[in-house]
Amino acid sequence: MAIEKIDGPRVAAGALEPFVAGLLAAGGADLPRATAVARAVVDASARGVDTHGVRLAPWYVEAARSRVVKPKPKVTFRRKAPSVGHVDGDLGFGHLASYRAVEEGCAIAAETGVAAITVGRSSHHGATGVYALAAAREGFACLAVTHADSIVVPFSGRKAFFGTNPLAFAVPVRKGEPMVLDMATSAVPFNRVMLRRATGKPLPPEVAMDKRGRMTTDPNRAIAVMPVGGADFGYKGAGLAAMIDVLCAPFTGMGHGATLKPPIPGMQPVGIGHFFLVMQPSTFQALSLFDRRLADFLADLRSQEARRGERVLAPGDLEVEEAKLRARLGVPVDRKTWADFERLAGEFGIAMPETMAPPRRPRRKAT
Amino acid sequence: MAIEKIDGPRVAAGALEPFVAGLLAAGGADLPRATAVARAVVDASARGVDTHGVRLAPWYVEAARSRVVKPKPKVTFRRKAPSVGHVDGDLGFGHLASYRAVEEGCAIAAETGVAAITVGRSSHHGATGVYALAAAREGFACLAVTHADSIVVPFSGRKAFFGTNPLAFAVPVRKGEPMVLDMATSAVPFNRVMLRRATGKPLPPEVAMDKRGRMTTDPNRAIAVMPVGGADFGYKGAGLAAMIDVLCAPFTGMGHGATLKPPIPGMQPVGIGHFFLVMQPSTFQALSLFDRRLADFLADLRSQEARRGERVLAPGDLEVEEAKLRARLGVPVDRKTWADFERLAGEFGIAMPETMAPPRRPRRKAT
Repeated sequence: MAIEKIDGPRVAAGALEPFVAGLLAAGGADLPRATAVARAVVDASARGVDTHGVRLAPWYVEAARSRVVKPKPKVTFRRKAPSVGHVDGDLGFGHLASYRAVEEGCAIAAETGVAAITVGRSSHHGATGVYALAAAREGFACLAVTHADSIVVPFSGRKAFFGTNPLAFAVPVRKGEPMVLDMATSAVPFNRVMLRRATGKPLPPEVAMDKRGRMTTDPNRAIAVMPVGGADFGYKGAGLAAMIDVLCAPFTGMGHGATLKPPIPGMQPVGIGHFFLVMQPSTFQALSLFDRRLADFLADLRSQEARRGERVLAPGDLEVEEAKLRARLGVPVDRKTWADFERLAGEFGIAMPETMAPPRRPRRKAT
Repeated sequence: MAIEKIDGPRVAAGALEPFVAGLLAAGGADLPRATAVARAVVDASARGVDTHGVRLAPWYVEAARSRVVKPKPKVTFRRKAPSVGHVDGDLGFGHLASYRAVEEGCAIAAETGVAAITVGRSSHHGATGVYALAAAREGFACLAVTHADSIVVPFSGRKAFFGTNPLAFAVPVRKGEPMVLDMATSAVPFNRVMLRRATGKPLPPEVAMDKRGRMTTDPNRAIAVMPVGGADFGYKGAGLAAMIDVLCAPFTGMGHGATLKPPIPGMQPVGIGHFFLVMQPSTFQALSLFDRRLADFLADLRSQEARRGERVLAPGDLEVEEAKLRARLGVPVDRKTWADFERLAGEFGIAMPETMAPPRRPRRKAT
């Protein structure tokens, strides 16, 4: 568990966000959409969640341009009961719909203590943890899940059925960054397979399957990934994936993940659902007690004796460290994405963001 | 993933429940407590969840008798906000407190769509899935979690910190049994280690640790188990365990799992917290749509192509099959537990439950 090193120019997050929003807007998205997408991907990149960071921006631009994702959707909210609401994404980007869900969820949780907000007719929203974190930054705890199209093999199965169906949970910490758990329920993201195809390194055992339904460590033969838990305990990962599909399909009104087909190969499907649970800590316990209990838990966890050369961390600690580093040194943009940025910026007549000087000598990497 | 064969007399669930309640009552528990414990353990045993079934009953009797768990607690409920409530378990058995939480949660969810119910000052409540299932049988979806004392090593750690911190999720299915996910966030329960000590078989790799902080497959050297995900991806299981500890400690007002010490070696600690989220499906979607989406999902999942000799199942399918078998043949009670029952029944002057005739020939086991 380490944040992978990204080789490429570094840009301040504050410069990257308007640049990405500008690309999206030039691609046809209206301002709220463009801003929400940029905010989500730059927030992910700023914390080292590079798989779901600015590398997705060119792909979102193409999605808007090709009208695969509606570039100017009318996102609407309806409160269905005192503690339940539904956001209709109108087949636009999932980012604005998801931020809206969190915002409405916080408002409701402030009234009733807890809110369950479903999102329907949405699309890919990047890193799910971004939205849970947005709630935590407002002082609320949030559990956020989304389903997706088929890439994960069910337990005992031979081909993909579930999406990577991530689960994110964030909770505000007094005088500190929120604790953020953000995990796919698959053993690895398919991005890991793609990366290993590029580097030629074999995959770990029991994380991927070939087209004949056999486990493989060859990234070039892998066409699906396994649920977390491996050959023996993958029913746990698959069970979580099933729970998430239920929360994102029957509860949102959408079809389950396996019914969702990407409109274009390589595109994410449109029409997916997300599910957000938002809770106000002070409704549950006096905030002083809540904060103390949480601080004690985190301090105790972080002080646990570690294996040689390792550290015991709380969920999200690595990203908090990386965020500090990137706030100082800038957000690295990988060379392929940077080339895409240059191409799109040229096409749209937009200025490239200013890059930051590279650090004078290599710095020790957070591991 | 198979339900382990239990060798011993078989008893109808309907006869087992009053017998177990009788033992508890003779041990000092009052009727509501005795009934709740019996209901919970027999419900688990009736569905093949034997690790958390009637084998725990003699242990609960001793807990009541020794006053480690308060045998006549005053369980109280307080509604803290429109959608939030808290059950105080008064240091009694977790079973009644948990059933009460689900009951109050269903009543609130019927009003506001969703309810978050915390339980504090509780104790071991058996199988967490029992309570999620109780809500689903009333037509509500339920996410239920509990923390526990230290037995699971955190990612990168060398000794136990988390409890097995199980997560259960149940959702009602029209014209069928509810879908029930009930999983520990550890790779295996410690009971698996105990069982392997008895059988002498080695453990799978990467599921257990010895006292020197090294992975071991020797059940006699294992003193802690690993989070689900193994050496590479155990941060996922540990992350879920952390989320559950937060929901069960800061949210309930209790200390986190690692602060909970069993009062007697082998006993579960008293003073733990549980967390229940209850949702009313019809608040989210028209029930006809909800039911259809869920049925489509389950049918699609169950019809997925399986590896040779296996089946793709939905969470809880094995237990539903086993429950049908046990409804016909009786609930098997392992010989050690049966001997405990005879000893306690003799001591309390209670009649043993009637056993059912063994089936004439071995039947094919659900796998």
